[in-house]
Amino acid sequence: MRLISFSTPAGQSFGVVRDQAVFDLSKRLDGRFADLKSLIAADALAQARQACGTGDGDFALDTVTLEPVIPNPQQIFCVGLNYAEHVKETNRETTENPVIFMRVPASQVGAGSPMLRPPESVQFDYEGEIAVIIGRGGRRIAEADAWGHVAGYSCYNDGSVRDWQRHTGQWGPGKNFYRTGAFGPWMVTSDEIEPNAVMTLVTRLNGLEVQRATTEMLIHGIARQIAYLSTFTPLFPGDVIVTGTPGGVGAKRNPPLFMKAGDVVEVEIDRVGILSNPIADEV
Amino acid sequence: MRLISFSTPAGQSFGVVRDQAVFDLSKRLDGRFADLKSLIAADALAQARQACGTGDGDFALDTVTLEPVIPNPQQIFCVGLNYAEHVKETNRETTENPVIFMRVPASQVGAGSPMLRPPESVQFDYEGEIAVIIGRGGRRIAEADAWGHVAGYSCYNDGSVRDWQRHTGQWGPGKNFYRTGAFGPWMVTSDEIEPNAVMTLVTRLNGLEVQRATTEMLIHGIARQIAYLSTFTPLFPGDVIVTGTPGGVGAKRNPPLFMKAGDVVEVEIDRVGILSNPIADEV
Repeated sequence: MRLISFSTPAGQSFGVVRDQAVFDLSKRLDGRFADLKSLIAADALAQARQACGTGDGDFALDTVTLEPVIPNPQQIFCVGLNYAEHVKETNRETTENPVIFMRVPASQVGAGSPMLRPPESVQFDYEGEIAVIIGRGGRRIAEADAWGHVAGYSCYNDGSVRDWQRHTGQWGPGKNFYRTGAFGPWMVTSDEIEPNAVMTLVTRLNGLEVQRATTEMLIHGIARQIAYLSTFTPLFPGDVIVTGTPGGVGAKRNPPLFMKAGDVVEVEIDRVGILSNPIADEV
Repeated sequence: MRLISFSTPAGQSFGVVRDQAVFDLSKRLDGRFADLKSLIAADALAQARQACGTGDGDFALDTVTLEPVIPNPQQIFCVGLNYAEHVKETNRETTENPVIFMRVPASQVGAGSPMLRPPESVQFDYEGEIAVIIGRGGRRIAEADAWGHVAGYSCYNDGSVRDWQRHTGQWGPGKNFYRTGAFGPWMVTSDEIEPNAVMTLVTRLNGLEVQRATTEMLIHGIARQIAYLSTFTPLFPGDVIVTGTPGGVGAKRNPPLFMKAGDVVEVEIDRVGILSNPIADEV
């Protein structure tokens, strides 16, 4: 099942995508859940599926605005330096534990919306990644149990303002400019993707492939990430883990390849879909 | 005015503290605001003041559980290495821009509640700091306008698990163990503390003074922090800025001075109050 958060002129909602139709779960579940995060927290995916029935949807997919899959996660953790080729291109070293930083919800947009290059920088870079959305929360989750805590998967573009990322040793500012990251188009529920499935991640800028990797290449795999994060903090339903970007980022190319207004960037995961965003200058 | 978030057996609420009495604003404002963050967002401090009247309060202060002043901020930004003595003791260098990292809400407790030392580490350290709570939100706030965006001030203990902070170059894991930080006891509203006021910050562990500084010693002052942060992200009402810790942290003493069960740690700010927390082992 493909779950989305979306908006229309009538407001924000969430729903199921089937073919090119959107089934509006706010309406079909009589407002019982405030948002997709609440649906996940209530473990109510079966109700969502049933509410869609076999008939037509409520909107054509191309008539709604897609929002970040979870617009309001309590926590967004990103894993850095998690593919060997990317560790190498940044002249850093592999660490025994995952490199963790955070994003704030305001730094994200949904599929189709422009990722914004701020006037403070021209060093606006892509980072294609696989996002994991937490279903059942927990603390000190063992690696062996981790897959049972995954609600689903999505595509993520961990858009980065490189000079601000390097202002100090802590990367937060360059990772959190307003609407510089993208998260979507939807969450594919974990019943469709078996634990530890091999997924292929590809990033394209204006149609040119710039990153490619598979989950087999992750230094710290998804189960390990869930175990590590949940050692220090409880994970909550709807939390997002952005699992790392492969080699090929724009800042480490010669010459560097940064994103600018009019570009189109895509992150594709074979079992999930394609996240496509235009780039625009923030005005 | 001193504003708190608190809980009783009846649930969570928020209110005003006057002398040793709590005025319950959920009740007195007829549920018009869900929490202190909502009250601040609605710029309704005058309503809060009026609702307290001149009579008695609803609870004795020592009968309620104080929660983190804002239990659910959208964003919590912490400033690192922001006093020269602390920069020196950590063998780091002063940076042109503030060092920014983030905490999650689950990492906090209110005044009086135990700060928890996790079983994963014995390197549990204090960091006394001044917390700024944002009132009016904004983006790209000029330093000259910054004070108009401050709702108030509180004490903060940026409790840190040092070995986990150093797992990699990014400090997040060591700064975000569950209930390791403390935020309280209340917010003193900014009408009582003039812009750029000199405040004195003192940390005591079991009565022994371990940190002392004034806001004049901040490398990046509060207005500069607001300007810098709001360049990359919108600041929202109820957001928290934890403004940096002075020299004297436990990890850099010889021998190191870490916190353990039974200790009591206090952060005092002369214009604000005292944040006191016992330390307990997480079980």
